Amino acid sequence: MAPGVKALLFDVFGTVVDWRSSLIADFTAWGKAKGIDVDWVPLVDAWRGAYMPSMDEVRKHPENGFVILDTLQRQSVEPLAAKLGITGLTPADFDYLTSGWHRLDPWPDSVSGLTRLKTKFMISPLSNGNVALLANMAKRAGLPWDLVLSAEVFGHYKPDREAYLGAARILGHQPHEVMLVAAHNNDLAAAQSFGLKTAFIPRPTEYGPLQKRDFGPEGKWDYVAKDLNDLAAQFGC
Amino acid sequence: MAPGVKALLFDVFGTVVDWRSSLIADFTAWGKAKGIDVDWVPLVDAWRGAYMPSMDEVRKHPENGFVILDTLQRQSVEPLAAKLGITGLTPADFDYLTSGWHRLDPWPDSVSGLTRLKTKFMISPLSNGNVALLANMAKRAGLPWDLVLSAEVFGHYKPDREAYLGAARILGHQPHEVMLVAAHNNDLAAAQSFGLKTAFIPRPTEYGPLQKRDFGPEGKWDYVAKDLNDLAAQFGC
Repeated sequence: MAPGVKALLFDVFGTVVDWRSSLIADFTAWGKAKGIDVDWVPLVDAWRGAYMPSMDEVRKHPENGFVILDTLQRQSVEPLAAKLGITGLTPADFDYLTSGWHRLDPWPDSVSGLTRLKTKFMISPLSNGNVALLANMAKRAGLPWDLVLSAEVFGHYKPDREAYLGAARILGHQPHEVMLVAAHNNDLAAAQSFGLKTAFIPRPTEYGPLQKRDFGPEGKWDYVAKDLNDLAAQFGC
Repeated sequence: MAPGVKALLFDVFGTVVDWRSSLIADFTAWGKAKGIDVDWVPLVDAWRGAYMPSMDEVRKHPENGFVILDTLQRQSVEPLAAKLGITGLTPADFDYLTSGWHRLDPWPDSVSGLTRLKTKFMISPLSNGNVALLANMAKRAGLPWDLVLSAEVFGHYKPDREAYLGAARILGHQPHEVMLVAAHNNDLAAAQSFGLKTAFIPRPTEYGPLQKRDFGPEGKWDYVAKDLNDLAAQFGC
């Protein structure tokens, strides 16, 4: 099964963890404890929306060096809150909200599926989240990574080629010996264009009622599975 | 216990794994199976001796970029074998010998000690071994790292400051929130000079009969323990 594939790389936000429900629940509980009466849903959705443009800025200005996701998220949340009329938050409050991205819960199949896949493959995230974010998330959620790879290690955000090919290289493998597992067709398309193998799993509730795409595979992916346990079963794990 | 320390970084060769006994046993069994009658002890000892000078060459020639340890080991083993009168090995044989550094066995206390330490701290190697070497080693030996940090990630070998400070930075911590655990006083001295906390554990048989130093602590280290289980006990893990 999956002949020649030695390592599985996983997109994380949306593929392994349910960022939207996690952030809404975390912020709601925190706001309640602090007496802050805010509907956090619009902020969470707008914040995720700011994610791609903020990485594009990093890409456009290499002279500034690579800026990690924690920093981008911290920079974008304050103006977004103001725009949404959320007032009275302190810098420490914004720091807390930003650290919420380290406290995301896995989908129900993630820990069991990864644990099974780990028996036959080297498993690692390949995420735009920074290393500390991914390591803190894994420790809290029990994600059993063999190692933690991140855009930060390669100084390039996905879908830049350096992220995918850097991951294969640092693992000592050829691109075709490495497979990206993701719930996003565009991430898989990039990986495939650079020679990696691909596996799609749908996460149709990732964006809640706002979800507009990625309900199913939209490319010739090497594998399509219902979830990570189904992928493990397809690989005989 | 260890107040303020959030992450433990571990030297690996000698501190966590017994490279000398492992390589000698691996090569002896392999040689026997292949009908190669060689005493591997001198090669293993000479190879380890070539380790520091080969990293110095990388340091002296930054224009060549960072060269990973697998490559340095592969480059040094062939002339060393010739010098020791070991003949008849093919390039594939030298590749096999080089990959031996991925197959090192842990000291008896390493897996249990790390597993205990992991309950209270983020744990990671901070080794001059490259990422693939460390990840393959961990998977085979059952080393339960939370993540895998390596000189390769920072483009600098220990004892360069970039390795120690890079590890603290990528974990999102201040240097004093990170502790290096090592069996080598010089590694700890470097870490301490850059503001990290330090813990020494002796590995008096690391170099076999050739061991000349590191029988005990030679600096004002924050902690001294008999082994990793003793360190875990000191930290209340």
